[in-house]
Amino acid sequence: MDGHSNIAAMMQTIGENAKEAATALAVASTEAKNSTLREMAASLRNRKPEIMAENDKDMAAGAEKGLTTAMLDRLKLDEDRIEGVAAGLEAIAGLIDPVGSIESAWDRPNGLQIERVRVPLGVIGVIYESRPNVTADAGGLCLKAGNAAILRGGSESFYSSRAIMSCLSDGLRAANLPEHAIQLVPVTDRAAVGEMLRMTDYIDVIVPRGGKSLIQRVSDESKVPLFKHLEGLCHTYVHEAANPEMALDIVVNAKMRRTGICGAMENLLIDRAIASGQLTNLVDRLVAAGCEVRGDPESCALDSRIIAASAEDWDTEYLDSIVSVKQVDGIDDAISFIRKHGSDHTEAIITDDAATAETFVNNVDSAIVMINASTQFADGGEFGMGAEIGISTGKLHARGPVGVEQLTSMKYIVRGTGQTRP
Amino acid sequence: MDGHSNIAAMMQTIGENAKEAATALAVASTEAKNSTLREMAASLRNRKPEIMAENDKDMAAGAEKGLTTAMLDRLKLDEDRIEGVAAGLEAIAGLIDPVGSIESAWDRPNGLQIERVRVPLGVIGVIYESRPNVTADAGGLCLKAGNAAILRGGSESFYSSRAIMSCLSDGLRAANLPEHAIQLVPVTDRAAVGEMLRMTDYIDVIVPRGGKSLIQRVSDESKVPLFKHLEGLCHTYVHEAANPEMALDIVVNAKMRRTGICGAMENLLIDRAIASGQLTNLVDRLVAAGCEVRGDPESCALDSRIIAASAEDWDTEYLDSIVSVKQVDGIDDAISFIRKHGSDHTEAIITDDAATAETFVNNVDSAIVMINASTQFADGGEFGMGAEIGISTGKLHARGPVGVEQLTSMKYIVRGTGQTRP
Repeated sequence: MDGHSNIAAMMQTIGENAKEAATALAVASTEAKNSTLREMAASLRNRKPEIMAENDKDMAAGAEKGLTTAMLDRLKLDEDRIEGVAAGLEAIAGLIDPVGSIESAWDRPNGLQIERVRVPLGVIGVIYESRPNVTADAGGLCLKAGNAAILRGGSESFYSSRAIMSCLSDGLRAANLPEHAIQLVPVTDRAAVGEMLRMTDYIDVIVPRGGKSLIQRVSDESKVPLFKHLEGLCHTYVHEAANPEMALDIVVNAKMRRTGICGAMENLLIDRAIASGQLTNLVDRLVAAGCEVRGDPESCALDSRIIAASAEDWDTEYLDSIVSVKQVDGIDDAISFIRKHGSDHTEAIITDDAATAETFVNNVDSAIVMINASTQFADGGEFGMGAEIGISTGKLHARGPVGVEQLTSMKYIVRGTGQTRP
Repeated sequence: MDGHSNIAAMMQTIGENAKEAATALAVASTEAKNSTLREMAASLRNRKPEIMAENDKDMAAGAEKGLTTAMLDRLKLDEDRIEGVAAGLEAIAGLIDPVGSIESAWDRPNGLQIERVRVPLGVIGVIYESRPNVTADAGGLCLKAGNAAILRGGSESFYSSRAIMSCLSDGLRAANLPEHAIQLVPVTDRAAVGEMLRMTDYIDVIVPRGGKSLIQRVSDESKVPLFKHLEGLCHTYVHEAANPEMALDIVVNAKMRRTGICGAMENLLIDRAIASGQLTNLVDRLVAAGCEVRGDPESCALDSRIIAASAEDWDTEYLDSIVSVKQVDGIDDAISFIRKHGSDHTEAIITDDAATAETFVNNVDSAIVMINASTQFADGGEFGMGAEIGISTGKLHARGPVGVEQLTSMKYIVRGTGQTRP
């Protein structure tokens, strides 16, 4: 066999094993799943030196390859970070188990009793880039929801992810759950991703996590349904009836608290009627926080610190200390701009006018719409849902934060006493 | 332009128009939508002679083409059937509007108020075969859920579907909803289907309704997410603790009430322990009802009326008066057989043993699992959900009957008072 058919055969085996594990996991008890998660955490803590030694290999290769300081920082695992990963698994153990939950139940006039009950999805594929902690986070979330997971991590974190996976396997063994409940694709060959994207017989849904090019490739090629997790090109709209102080605080937080997360604001819209009075204050605060401000010609004319924005700026997810400012003519103009340039992730309005706020939330077609709050709250943890595997910008199945509940499906159970249909 | 680029341009326009209509429909009032549905029904009643004249054209072309009597019967529209279509639209008007329904709401410790609210999906594509009534049923259901619809009917019902579409347009005009809220693809060229399957910018989900080859083509080609609506290869399992009389009634009903629907039983499983005592009674009833019985060698040995089943029989959705009987060795064997041969649609167990029944419903991974009832109840109407656009066998988003609620998505609305994320 050549290399490619080797990989195809390997992925086929991984798929078969995952499907078999999923059958057992679907009926695993909450206690067994939680105990596994806690054993995984214990193994991570016990094996810290070994994990850090494996991480050193990735760090050395990364430095050799010329990864940026930011990328190397994301890759790094130290004692504290491993402790954080372990604590994350314990937090998942503490979440409510969605499987078996009766979402609704009703009786029919003919006596049939119908229940709609949560069940696992089956097998979930996760394709992610270099953060090694995703191995544990994604594996743990899938397990809690009763799903088998096939994890494909980035090549830069190969050794680190493998070391973490080994601790997850310890947990599965200790609690007697199937060893193939979580599998890490053991090669960095990109052909393995191509195989995953065609494995409709074995994988129920694929969650891609990473940069634009990864997501694009996965979206173009996949025959398996995806939880679309596109970029977060989030807007904040400062309406003319906004409280000016609140606008300053929210805008700076939405942009600068953490610039690298998908809920960070990228475009700032401001009503033309208040721009001359308030834009300079906003720019003061943004510049003081270290942000570069780009803008439309009208905004540049108001404040010389604003750099002329190019056409692409309005469609760019900077994930950096840059924001683009655009003046709009009221709520309808703001909504049209967001429809054209947004990515259906998270948008916020700042206003003291309740009617305008309702118009905004009803007409902006994004997964999350906010009134008088920072877009940085777009996060499963901040929503009180516990850990998340990502924020879905698609409309099917899961929209917004994808936590354990979103990793399940439903089945109908119909209980009769001999009914036949007339 | 050649014919193909003409069709591509036409479909592009249909897509743009649908997307624009969807924006308006998303915020249309329940009253406006219900009034539209009732106006559509009124137009169908007013224009019966014209619809029947158009239907005559399809019937004549169908007879010319040599369609079977059964196919011609499905195609036929008479006064009663048009009345049925009109009444169906009025029934949809009577359903609860899912849009805007607050599915859950909670407050966070920082004072943020979060609501999870139902919103329309956007634009729904429906690709269906020759039944012309689907034009009204699917169009009406999409409208009620606030979605724009692009309908692509079968070529055999072209004139009939166009006449019905004209009545739907009357209703949209009368109630002042966007004329492009429901559009029927006005050509029979198959290239139009190919275009629909690639229109990811305009269509949010496609619902294929029809035979195996249509579904297969759509599944293979579509870049747009699908509500998978595969065949219904439904099983009934007569457990050794089944009430024998109940088993007789349910089995005959599940197979023979209507053989052409997806909820009809195709494979009958019976515990080996009771086969010698009960199989002949079952065969008596099935044969008396006009059913051909095929079976495994053990069953053939018990009853000479049973014809030897081929390997393909166990995987065949007959949609006809034929059933295949297989003896199994208890619940685990039955579950394995269903996992191997079922289509994840609907399966039933007949038993008086409650523990076995629970094992069955927990371990059979189908959209609908039943205890002591006929699989023919697998239907949105019988579930009390009102009209349905189909039964989804996929696990993502919609599983089981797809009614108005399943044609919606969710959004999160977050209301704050100036919160920033620490």
